[in-house]
Amino acid sequence: MHLVAIGGSDAGISAALRARELDPATDVTVVVADEYPNFSICGIPYYFSGDVRPWQSLAHRTHADLEATGMSLRLNTLATGIDVAGQRLNVRAADGTESVIGYDELIVGTGALPSHAGITGLDQLTPADGLHVIHSMGDTFALDRDLEARDPRTAIIIGAGYVGLEMAEGFSARGIDVTVLQRGPEVLSTLDPELGSSVHEELTSHGVHVRTRTVVRSVEKDTDGLLVRADHDGQPVNLRADIVLAVVGVRPNTQLLESAGATLGAGRAVVVDEQMRTGLPHVYAAGDGVVTHHRLLGVTYLPLGTTAHKQGRVAGENAIGGDARFAGSVGTQVVKVFDLVAARTGLHDHEAHAAGFQSVTTQTTADDHKRYYPGAQPISIRITGDADNGRLLGAQLVGRLGTETAKRVDTYATALFAGLTVQQISDLDLSYTPPLGSPWDAVQAATQAWTRATIETEITV
Amino acid sequence: MHLVAIGGSDAGISAALRARELDPATDVTVVVADEYPNFSICGIPYYFSGDVRPWQSLAHRTHADLEATGMSLRLNTLATGIDVAGQRLNVRAADGTESVIGYDELIVGTGALPSHAGITGLDQLTPADGLHVIHSMGDTFALDRDLEARDPRTAIIIGAGYVGLEMAEGFSARGIDVTVLQRGPEVLSTLDPELGSSVHEELTSHGVHVRTRTVVRSVEKDTDGLLVRADHDGQPVNLRADIVLAVVGVRPNTQLLESAGATLGAGRAVVVDEQMRTGLPHVYAAGDGVVTHHRLLGVTYLPLGTTAHKQGRVAGENAIGGDARFAGSVGTQVVKVFDLVAARTGLHDHEAHAAGFQSVTTQTTADDHKRYYPGAQPISIRITGDADNGRLLGAQLVGRLGTETAKRVDTYATALFAGLTVQQISDLDLSYTPPLGSPWDAVQAATQAWTRATIETEITV
Repeated sequence: MHLVAIGGSDAGISAALRARELDPATDVTVVVADEYPNFSICGIPYYFSGDVRPWQSLAHRTHADLEATGMSLRLNTLATGIDVAGQRLNVRAADGTESVIGYDELIVGTGALPSHAGITGLDQLTPADGLHVIHSMGDTFALDRDLEARDPRTAIIIGAGYVGLEMAEGFSARGIDVTVLQRGPEVLSTLDPELGSSVHEELTSHGVHVRTRTVVRSVEKDTDGLLVRADHDGQPVNLRADIVLAVVGVRPNTQLLESAGATLGAGRAVVVDEQMRTGLPHVYAAGDGVVTHHRLLGVTYLPLGTTAHKQGRVAGENAIGGDARFAGSVGTQVVKVFDLVAARTGLHDHEAHAAGFQSVTTQTTADDHKRYYPGAQPISIRITGDADNGRLLGAQLVGRLGTETAKRVDTYATALFAGLTVQQISDLDLSYTPPLGSPWDAVQAATQAWTRATIETEITV
Repeated sequence: MHLVAIGGSDAGISAALRARELDPATDVTVVVADEYPNFSICGIPYYFSGDVRPWQSLAHRTHADLEATGMSLRLNTLATGIDVAGQRLNVRAADGTESVIGYDELIVGTGALPSHAGITGLDQLTPADGLHVIHSMGDTFALDRDLEARDPRTAIIIGAGYVGLEMAEGFSARGIDVTVLQRGPEVLSTLDPELGSSVHEELTSHGVHVRTRTVVRSVEKDTDGLLVRADHDGQPVNLRADIVLAVVGVRPNTQLLESAGATLGAGRAVVVDEQMRTGLPHVYAAGDGVVTHHRLLGVTYLPLGTTAHKQGRVAGENAIGGDARFAGSVGTQVVKVFDLVAARTGLHDHEAHAAGFQSVTTQTTADDHKRYYPGAQPISIRITGDADNGRLLGAQLVGRLGTETAKRVDTYATALFAGLTVQQISDLDLSYTPPLGSPWDAVQAATQAWTRATIETEITV
């Protein structure tokens, strides 16, 4: 039994590890396009902030760790075509040599590619021009070299999502003057703007310039560096910087599977079922290249590292004869921005409405622990619930570092998984000690406020 | 409609608040034995450590806050008898005046009293002798005065439970040399000894003397202070200290309801149903004086502040005509001991076996966040699961302050509430960012280890 996994990131490696873990008799080969398998791409911003050194420590597991599990790695090897009927994978080595790898089962984890979001000029510029993306270790080295050579004083970051804000912090830590451009009305569009605004304030209080409602049209190079042309509320704005980082999202990297006959679905990602089957015989796929089964939205596209790990694990188990199912994402995410932590799970208000729910969202502020104990800090929490049936639909939290905000969102994520109502959150037996919580945890204070604002206004007892 | 609640602590006040919140037309009177309604008894150790000053800040709400909700408080008023048929409560004021309060519905939240655990002499000694308990604000003031007057250099704490360990930290912060005596094999018997041992080490590393397997027989006063006679592994041991704090648990304070005809059940606490009805017409009860409906154990006695809040809320809602049910405890608890946080939910191994489960417990250590990001710390986690059906039965965690251990236990508590299997914990979409977590959170690393050690050893794929 020969299992081949394509992709050295979360999905491919998780699949290979799971197969080896469950059946050490399985022969597992992982085909990796570069020479950096199992690196934590999420950790790259902390390399630039200087928190993580050397870059090698970004590896979840070293090459030796991986091989110790019994898998074989084919590094610097690009998968160029799948012969589905023949169960053969065509690959090309760095020196151009073509070869063929036979497989019994194949798992494709080719991930996603940086999006250009329709910005003119991005495809003509390179790191040598000061234009960067951050999606691989190769990108990381290119940016690192450029920072060394160019010693930039100014940077523009296009996109105020997770990576954009983490990189804003990273550049600021190096003394670079950073401007973040955001298309929408507020940074971090994964949150409602009412909470995104506190992240915005955190950025500006640390000297980051933030321009919202700013749609970038083009990036071009001239003698003074890079020129970014944008529209701000319909008015043209020109901005300059020594370097530009474009982090405006990703698009699924589907070329290999598309050519092999796979179907594209939500977000133009490859359609897979909950068992990570592509429909092509003996071909599974997982990670940022495939659609996401979501417990509230059905099939959507929501690429996240945690999801890729889970999907890869399912694919690895099923490829060797198991019967695992991906239980579905609820879209849980968290980001640290300077001293603030912003987390969300489920749907925020706009998403819930767009998905057809009769949603109601309320916002509350509750202390992370009893106010009488030193160091209590408020956590702002927005609860989205279904006015029809009382079900919890989502939660968003913003609190300072040290308020256990990241793991408080997990209580909501678990409740969403279990399909609890907003009211049932009050029934949860959550932990309490005065230095770390309250008899009704902040998590529950927020849901009780939602209930008061909705259901209890109608109660007649 | 006149609702009377007896008790100024969690259950009584929660009941009164809930009734006022749901129906502001309800006339609510709260009868409070002392003059300190709604004080955070859990916060008292932090008054002695000096973290919380003045003592008034221990009030969850001030007298004025409470009256602003529209409830009436009768302070320094002892409930002496219930005339169930006549729906009248007999009370005695501090000056000895007896009076009668008529009620339509009554909620009894008389709580618990310190236990003496069969130790000779405790009932003959008082704070004036240097013998203390910590169960009320009156106890707090007595200890405070005694610390001032006696300026003790040494203290013995009998009982290494939550309050004992918090008070050990509080006394240590004041420069008092503390010895903690524990009957069982390890401190904090709410954890398996394998984890209790790290709490033990934390205590000793901060200069607290800990003596386990030490059963106290008597406390007596002589000219040199207090003499504690104990057995250690069957050998007599005599210990001396300037003051002794006895925190060996509580017993339900049931006298009022027993006299009125209520039934006693688990732990000799008053039997109530899930709606907090005592069976006596128009009489509800909640808090440390009543039995605890537990989602894993059925009816037991597990007095906790969080539970008292929930039960009080249910009683308050039902007393005014609602139909709320206490959903059941899962025994979630957390304590900070110096720089360590110890948390548990559900059952530990011994409890699960005693309750008849085919339980298996495994222990894992996992970092609180990605090791490459500065400050990663291991969290030790024990998972107890049911080998018959794979259900999660309990989790115990010990981590350092700042590792979000207190809120990680809440994920398990929520999973227990929802009846998830250990394997399903891997399906939870938990939050991840390198400074605050891992793609598989520590919570999931621990359950995956359990699954590997049990189910997957039998899998043939």
